[in-house]
Amino acid sequence: MADRTRTYSWDDPFALSEHLAGRSGLELMQAMASGELPAPPIAHTLGFRLVEVERGRAVFECQPAEFHYNPIGTVHAGLPTTLMDSAMGLAFVTTLEQPVPWTTLELKANFTRALTVETGLVRCTGTVIHAGRRVATTEARVEDAEGRLYAHGTSTILVL
Amino acid sequence: MADRTRTYSWDDPFALSEHLAGRSGLELMQAMASGELPAPPIAHTLGFRLVEVERGRAVFECQPAEFHYNPIGTVHAGLPTTLMDSAMGLAFVTTLEQPVPWTTLELKANFTRALTVETGLVRCTGTVIHAGRRVATTEARVEDAEGRLYAHGTSTILVL
Amino acid sequence: MADRTRTYSWDDPFALSEHLAGRSGLELMQAMASGELPAPPIAHTLGFRLVEVERGRAVFECQPAEFHYNPIGTVHAGLPTTLMDSAMGLAFVTTLEQPVPWTTLELKANFTRALTVETGLVRCTGTVIHAGRRVATTEARVEDAEGRLYAHGTSTILVL
Amino acid sequence: MADRTRTYSWDDPFALSEHLAGRSGLELMQAMASGELPAPPIAHTLGFRLVEVERGRAVFECQPAEFHYNPIGTVHAGLPTTLMDSAMGLAFVTTLEQPVPWTTLELKANFTRALTVETGLVRCTGTVIHAGRRVATTEARVEDAEGRLYAHGTSTILVL
Repeated sequence: MADRTRTYSWDDPFALSEHLAGRSGLELMQAMASGELPAPPIAHTLGFRLVEVERGRAVFECQPAEFHYNPIGTVHAGLPTTLMDSAMGLAFVTTLEQPVPWTTLELKANFTRALTVETGLVRCTGTVIHAGRRVATTEARVEDAEGRLYAHGTSTILVL
Repeated sequence: MADRTRTYSWDDPFALSEHLAGRSGLELMQAMASGELPAPPIAHTLGFRLVEVERGRAVFECQPAEFHYNPIGTVHAGLPTTLMDSAMGLAFVTTLEQPVPWTTLELKANFTRALTVETGLVRCTGTVIHAGRRVATTEARVEDAEGRLYAHGTSTILVL
Repeated sequence: MADRTRTYSWDDPFALSEHLAGRSGLELMQAMASGELPAPPIAHTLGFRLVEVERGRAVFECQPAEFHYNPIGTVHAGLPTTLMDSAMGLAFVTTLEQPVPWTTLELKANFTRALTVETGLVRCTGTVIHAGRRVATTEARVEDAEGRLYAHGTSTILVL
Repeated sequence: MADRTRTYSWDDPFALSEHLAGRSGLELMQAMASGELPAPPIAHTLGFRLVEVERGRAVFECQPAEFHYNPIGTVHAGLPTTLMDSAMGLAFVTTLEQPVPWTTLELKANFTRALTVETGLVRCTGTVIHAGRRVATTEARVEDAEGRLYAHGTSTILVL
């Protein structure tokens, strides 16, 4: 019982706020992708990282692992959903001239294929569909190295 | 940098299959809630546990922590979504006379209040709305000790 | 071909605005349910009507008919979805001290049983789940006279 | 009161079944788009029509009109949702070698801009995202002549 162990580390999530002044959303996300700014704790907990950003788009990578598993022998749907929420949120941030408070009001995810440790590295791409003044909508896809689709989703974001 | 560290353990997620024979879905979930059967890896990774089950209903508890945080200083929406997906899936399992292969086709989540470390222990309750022969729909809510609502959602489950 | 014909009437949808001043959202919805205020054009087009309102809740009735049919011999899913969107929107309106501009940002609907002309009169009940200052979430159900569930859904509403 | 009147006609929705044998889903949809096969009753009730089909894609057109209006002076969200459900369902049908019974399990719609009579003709394009053996997922968009987006959505379809 309890024969697998994992140890990981993360950074103070509030240290990020010192770095926000005077940078656009895209510049901040580029600094996060390059490693200049620390990844958030959840990215360390679940083992994913921001690898690409451009205006209106953010891409994460993740290696499905046993520590993501559900009771039915596959990766829990919470993993692709968390990847998609992250990618959609940061795709939105790249469209901001300067950081503003915002929140995800809702998300919807479809799961089209089970993720397992055999899947190998997956990429999750988030894209902005509609960027209004107060509300944005976004979409995301989780795909493997061959472009097979594992999950897709949409979300609604509100500027506070 | 990287000044926080966490170590945790989990059990072989495939060991569960030995325990399935001859038990109803409700009996299996009761065995998981009591600790007789191990929790899945994802529950150890994100720090949640099954605390109550009855026919058509499953309840998880989770203590929001810094390791759940997103880059904007609150718990990542992936946590309540993962809790709800777990609670909805296991609520469905409690309705099965015997284990069958199944999958979550989709889920939708609304986030009504931010979770932080100050929120304290939350409960996530999943309930079956409609149990058809091949398709079930379910709903879930995440609430704190005072009954304040943080997230709610629905999902569609397919018997394979 | 084209052997069925239907004729119906409706009222100027902009005449309603004269009636808004000095009434709460609940009072307006009560006036609509009683017939003092006209139903909107879509209610005449699809044949549904508001029958009950109270604070946080609105109920519509509709008789499924051939003019609602899709190409596969059942009522089009657009009908229960439209009923649910109406019931959720007006449930929200009943919570307003005075009318404010608002919009539905998104809705999600699950269809659990096909509606046909044999179903008979259905009721669609919309309820407010969370009423924030700027954002509300709601849910709805479509049921027949025996309480069988045909559809359920949720939506997110934004105060403009 | 009730000063606007509309009269319209439709065809027996069960007459379609005579035409199904020996044709692929794409051939059937092409016959519906060309007018050889009748449009379903709901298309006459809400005033929309199938204008283009190809494998994995279906396009409807609709002219927003006063008879689509809600109580707040815009087109009811039920119209774009019904258009999207139709376009997503028929996009799925075009992928079938031969007609099979199927149903829409759920749909989710985001509304990004209000439709009014000033919007002019809109097009709703449905596309298949994932076509599995038993489950398909689809998406749709509603756009005006200038390509402005009014609504977008996704759905899950089950082969029965």
